[in-house]
Amino acid sequence: MKGFKQTTRPEQALKRFLDNLAARQLESEKVSLDEALGRVLAKDIVSNVNIPPYDRAAMDGYAVVAEDSFGSSQTNPALLRLIGKTVMGISPILKITRGEAAEITTGAVLPPGADAVVMLEYARRIDARQIEVLAPVTPGENVSRAGEDVQEGDVVLRRGTRLEPPDIGMLAALMLNEVEVVRRPRVAILCTGDELVELDDSPQQGKIVNTNRFVLSALVRKVGGAETYLGIVEDSVADISRLVRKGLAEADIVLVTGGTSVGETDLVPEAIQLLGKPGMLVHGVSMRPGMPTGLASVDGKAVVSLSGQPVAAMIGFNMFVRPVMLRLLGTEEELTASVKARVLRRAASALGMKTFLRVTVMEVNGEYIADPITTTGSGLLSSMTQANGMIIIPEDKEGIEAGEEATVALFRPIERRRHG
Amino acid sequence: MKGFKQTTRPEQALKRFLDNLAARQLESEKVSLDEALGRVLAKDIVSNVNIPPYDRAAMDGYAVVAEDSFGSSQTNPALLRLIGKTVMGISPILKITRGEAAEITTGAVLPPGADAVVMLEYARRIDARQIEVLAPVTPGENVSRAGEDVQEGDVVLRRGTRLEPPDIGMLAALMLNEVEVVRRPRVAILCTGDELVELDDSPQQGKIVNTNRFVLSALVRKVGGAETYLGIVEDSVADISRLVRKGLAEADIVLVTGGTSVGETDLVPEAIQLLGKPGMLVHGVSMRPGMPTGLASVDGKAVVSLSGQPVAAMIGFNMFVRPVMLRLLGTEEELTASVKARVLRRAASALGMKTFLRVTVMEVNGEYIADPITTTGSGLLSSMTQANGMIIIPEDKEGIEAGEEATVALFRPIERRRHG
Repeated sequence: MKGFKQTTRPEQALKRFLDNLAARQLESEKVSLDEALGRVLAKDIVSNVNIPPYDRAAMDGYAVVAEDSFGSSQTNPALLRLIGKTVMGISPILKITRGEAAEITTGAVLPPGADAVVMLEYARRIDARQIEVLAPVTPGENVSRAGEDVQEGDVVLRRGTRLEPPDIGMLAALMLNEVEVVRRPRVAILCTGDELVELDDSPQQGKIVNTNRFVLSALVRKVGGAETYLGIVEDSVADISRLVRKGLAEADIVLVTGGTSVGETDLVPEAIQLLGKPGMLVHGVSMRPGMPTGLASVDGKAVVSLSGQPVAAMIGFNMFVRPVMLRLLGTEEELTASVKARVLRRAASALGMKTFLRVTVMEVNGEYIADPITTTGSGLLSSMTQANGMIIIPEDKEGIEAGEEATVALFRPIERRRHG
Repeated sequence: MKGFKQTTRPEQALKRFLDNLAARQLESEKVSLDEALGRVLAKDIVSNVNIPPYDRAAMDGYAVVAEDSFGSSQTNPALLRLIGKTVMGISPILKITRGEAAEITTGAVLPPGADAVVMLEYARRIDARQIEVLAPVTPGENVSRAGEDVQEGDVVLRRGTRLEPPDIGMLAALMLNEVEVVRRPRVAILCTGDELVELDDSPQQGKIVNTNRFVLSALVRKVGGAETYLGIVEDSVADISRLVRKGLAEADIVLVTGGTSVGETDLVPEAIQLLGKPGMLVHGVSMRPGMPTGLASVDGKAVVSLSGQPVAAMIGFNMFVRPVMLRLLGTEEELTASVKARVLRRAASALGMKTFLRVTVMEVNGEYIADPITTTGSGLLSSMTQANGMIIIPEDKEGIEAGEEATVALFRPIERRRHG
């Protein structure tokens, strides 16, 4: 982490970054309802139908003209002529006029002319052709009105909505076979480092498997993007620069891992600087892990230089890449789970550094306890596979004490455990 | 909702249901790491390597035998013979013996024989062949130990883990190309009702689009299952029974929507009863919406009769189908988001009925406010497309008052709004 003369506060870095990127939402594309789950609506959905499209019975009983029932009672029933039966799923073939009634089942279309339903309990069947109404109904009584759920012209779903199961049902109810969603942001991933080999390569002593490729691809997909993998590039400014340029031609965002510290082989910032204006905006952020993160804009597109350490890369992604992806998708913040938990033991952090502390949250006798995972470095993947949450210790705070209450952002379910 | 002489409490219904189903976890299948995100691990992952596989330099400096540095100081430096340089990504070709040192960069493999790294700051270069060490180092100092992240034999990820991005990275680090995950639970969906038409059919008066197909498919996928759609079946016991049997042959769970109230066309429980033992376990649950839900077990497989009303079907799914799917997947409860919010205005509920109240949660001046969506019926999809959360009013409580604090389970992000 040597060599950063000064670092930028993460929020300030993010603002400078977003301010220098093209602010547009991506183009839209049409997808079928089967493919729409989790996609982001590109436009408001305005209904051009009523749901339900017709008045229908809310109870089993008799469709009537309400006025015919006025004044009726057990002792003074209203006699009506029964002209037939209408059931759910059948277009009404009957038409009701004054003095008439039709048997009706819940959900069936109210026959034209009728404006209320007398419940079975408040009617007496005289014979196949006549009923007595034993209590008055008001117009609209026991009727589900056309447009009760959705009225023609209603904005039913707003652009920027990430489509959840009921939304897909609603689109079907509106009789839409397809829906216009924002296309997936394309994110190109380039990994630098002479020490890296691909998972499929045969292992070589001194080399390590490129894990960042998998971690970042998964993060991109979880946000709703699509990744392109540009491969491993050796530590050469010319090669890095060429491949980032290739990424920019195909993708909306380019991520480069490794080579971002200030060391002799940290060539990524130099390579990015060759590509265009304004270039590097931030290099070195007041956060741990993730300090060597670099943020650049090339022709309005984001280029992010992430740490080669997978945990630092993940945290850098969440802090800086996710907000850019969400803006390209035209959507608000995502649904995140968090709980208040009591910290089990002290964890250190450096004053002036926003610190992302990995913790294991347990529910112990109804209370949430957060156990900090103590690791020596940001590179330890096990700190993220063991953790189910993260506490952010702000810059103006030095460590967190045993017994302190803190907000934990969860990324896995909480374990229910008897403790101690 | 007529006709249920008695209803079963939801928790009791769920217990009876789970007790009568085969308890086995589904078989596993191998998937590549690219397909593993969100899948559930079928077996513990035990590492058969150390990560990192070798001791490596944690700082730039000189690899030495620590003992050679003992007693050294600025005024009494230890003179060592510089035998070369070792960098990251290269297998060490050097071997260090007493009196020798090798230049080393962070992350590089520690040469055999060396056991510590003297930081650049604590060494002085005399010439191309000699350095002076100005301070002692202890064995292991400035060295990342082999196995620091993961040791051979460690259980790195437990069965039942839903794979998140860092887990995929970890599997790559373990050099696993494939991973054994629980196969997706197969859920067959059958929709009953003479009033239903498919989205692709031409609209007919009196008919409504089958939305449950889309809602349930999306819910199944979100939990990690795969759906099979059996189509719309008319209200016939023989046809329903035949198609549920077909579903049972192919799937782990069969869902049937509609026809579950106690009316003349409510044939689903009768059809299920024909299929095998123990058959219907529960019909009628003390919850709203979702009261007519029916739970059955046929040869150990779950058959769930859900309301034809999409909102009631959704809530029935979450209450009864989701836990079965999770058990088949061999995993714990899922990560869910919830907040405490103050209820904006009174909402009614019936004593004895667990009530699922749809609300819109807003953040107003730092406080969460839950605005109940008032609807007349469980069928209104708009109550779920407008809502971002749900308050569960317990059976022993009658309504919820304005100003009361309640836990809201969120299914969408919270809107940030200035209110009033």
